[in-house]
Amino acid sequence: MNFLDELKSLKDQIKVKNKFDINFDFDNIVISGMGGSGVVGNIFQEYYSKKPVITVGDYGIPDFVNNKTLFIGISYSGNTEETLNNIEEAKNRGAHVFGITSGGKLETIIENKIIIPSGIQPRSALGYMLMPLYNTFNLINDDQIDSIYKILDAIDQNHEEMKNEAFKIYGNSYIPIIFGSRPYKSVAYRWKTQFNENAKTFAFYNYFPELNHNDTMPLKSAYRKDEYLYYVFESDNQRVNQRIRITQEITGSQFNIIKPPSEDYFNKLFYLIHYADYLTYQLALIRNIDPNDVSTIEDLKQKLA
Amino acid sequence: MNFLDELKSLKDQIKVKNKFDINFDFDNIVISGMGGSGVVGNIFQEYYSKKPVITVGDYGIPDFVNNKTLFIGISYSGNTEETLNNIEEAKNRGAHVFGITSGGKLETIIENKIIIPSGIQPRSALGYMLMPLYNTFNLINDDQIDSIYKILDAIDQNHEEMKNEAFKIYGNSYIPIIFGSRPYKSVAYRWKTQFNENAKTFAFYNYFPELNHNDTMPLKSAYRKDEYLYYVFESDNQRVNQRIRITQEITGSQFNIIKPPSEDYFNKLFYLIHYADYLTYQLALIRNIDPNDVSTIEDLKQKLA
Repeated sequence: MNFLDELKSLKDQIKVKNKFDINFDFDNIVISGMGGSGVVGNIFQEYYSKKPVITVGDYGIPDFVNNKTLFIGISYSGNTEETLNNIEEAKNRGAHVFGITSGGKLETIIENKIIIPSGIQPRSALGYMLMPLYNTFNLINDDQIDSIYKILDAIDQNHEEMKNEAFKIYGNSYIPIIFGSRPYKSVAYRWKTQFNENAKTFAFYNYFPELNHNDTMPLKSAYRKDEYLYYVFESDNQRVNQRIRITQEITGSQFNIIKPPSEDYFNKLFYLIHYADYLTYQLALIRNIDPNDVSTIEDLKQKLA
Repeated sequence: MNFLDELKSLKDQIKVKNKFDINFDFDNIVISGMGGSGVVGNIFQEYYSKKPVITVGDYGIPDFVNNKTLFIGISYSGNTEETLNNIEEAKNRGAHVFGITSGGKLETIIENKIIIPSGIQPRSALGYMLMPLYNTFNLINDDQIDSIYKILDAIDQNHEEMKNEAFKIYGNSYIPIIFGSRPYKSVAYRWKTQFNENAKTFAFYNYFPELNHNDTMPLKSAYRKDEYLYYVFESDNQRVNQRIRITQEITGSQFNIIKPPSEDYFNKLFYLIHYADYLTYQLALIRNIDPNDVSTIEDLKQKLA
């Protein structure tokens, strides 16, 4: 599958119905994953908080993990060193261990697992990895899925806006800074990583209201501040939108406000995700860089092995 | 107190003995705070994980918060909008609510509180806000405190190294990127915010091993990559140190490795914190900027009120 087809597959990924059977007693949820697989847990955590959800993007799991923990290891390749390490540790602690993977070693060490299609980039499989979490907790219905499908399909058909933005970035060698807000803070992080992996540019992120306690100062007074281009997600919270407006005013900044075409959480989530998919894909093409290539990351894994 | 004296007060702040009485049954810990007060919970969370610790740097608290939650609101001024909002919500849910503040409204709405000295910048009061957490869970002893005191005092006496680094940053208009690793990821964030608030420069952070799944690509192939200066904390984990070495090798990057003079967690923690205190203070002086001034943040609060 070429990279554009990978992007276009997102609208079909959201239709998967697989889920975990969590018909047992647990006090907390720990989700372990790195990079494109790791952001899945973080996105979920911002939306679901009926129990404590702790995400781990690292070697090692929290001390509290025990037989009252629902532990989910997510690794698209199934061979992510940090995640495999954490799964073994969680099993030793007696946690209820589940996995999401396309294969690899993870498939062989976990009994309760969801196997997703292999052969694409982990970052292109976000829907496959995220939907089982929403399905498991019954958070999404078919009407929402139909509506997301239409939004994603519309972007697949027409992403002229993202292409224009990509030209603007390239023409000025801008470095994107993305400011999200809850429950889309992890989507701002996803934008950053898509710039990194697809377009091979630096990108940075923060979120409202936290950035009003620090980044507000350099927005006004830093050197090199004109080298950045700011993308800001319109918020569900009017107090946050007020902060966005005032921050521009007092720092003399001009933000590019990204306005999703829906108020529904899931519709908004996938719109924002797919916006960056195309923005970073287009930027790669303009830079004459293969968006698919992550050979430097592969080299590192080889040298570590 | 002038700003240099504020920095020098850290070594005395670590001597405070106050703690909360947590002699009741609880399942999880939620710590709410923003900016310089918010990083306190994040630093604690990386070290203590016998129970789930969730930090909130936002409006709104997780759905699970109830009478089995130990909730700690931290606001140096006592008037932080987001934190006050969350404290009220936690009280309504029946959580065990505690606070750390120098006064303000927080003092009047919480019964179980620790009052710390007022009159300095919140970011200069890190020791006052952090030690009560370590004390409450009996995590630190007097020998460690003596040893930290000596390390901090030595930096107060001689911070030539930080001054030289500040000249290097200024001379090239570098933008610092700080790469931490567990349990000092939040310290990398603290560095970022100290650059923002003291020196009014942009700064960005990430951590090993997560950055090997994204930032590794632009480190090799980005435009403008020579405009950044990389600070990387030597890790406690040899596998991470191997990653640091290989990442430099395969991307052709040169990292400034910060090596604390001790293997002890607390000694290392405060060394790293104080390093950035002086680095960012010196950079402000070289830029001819008042390190104390955060008037843009104050303006924003006024306009929001």
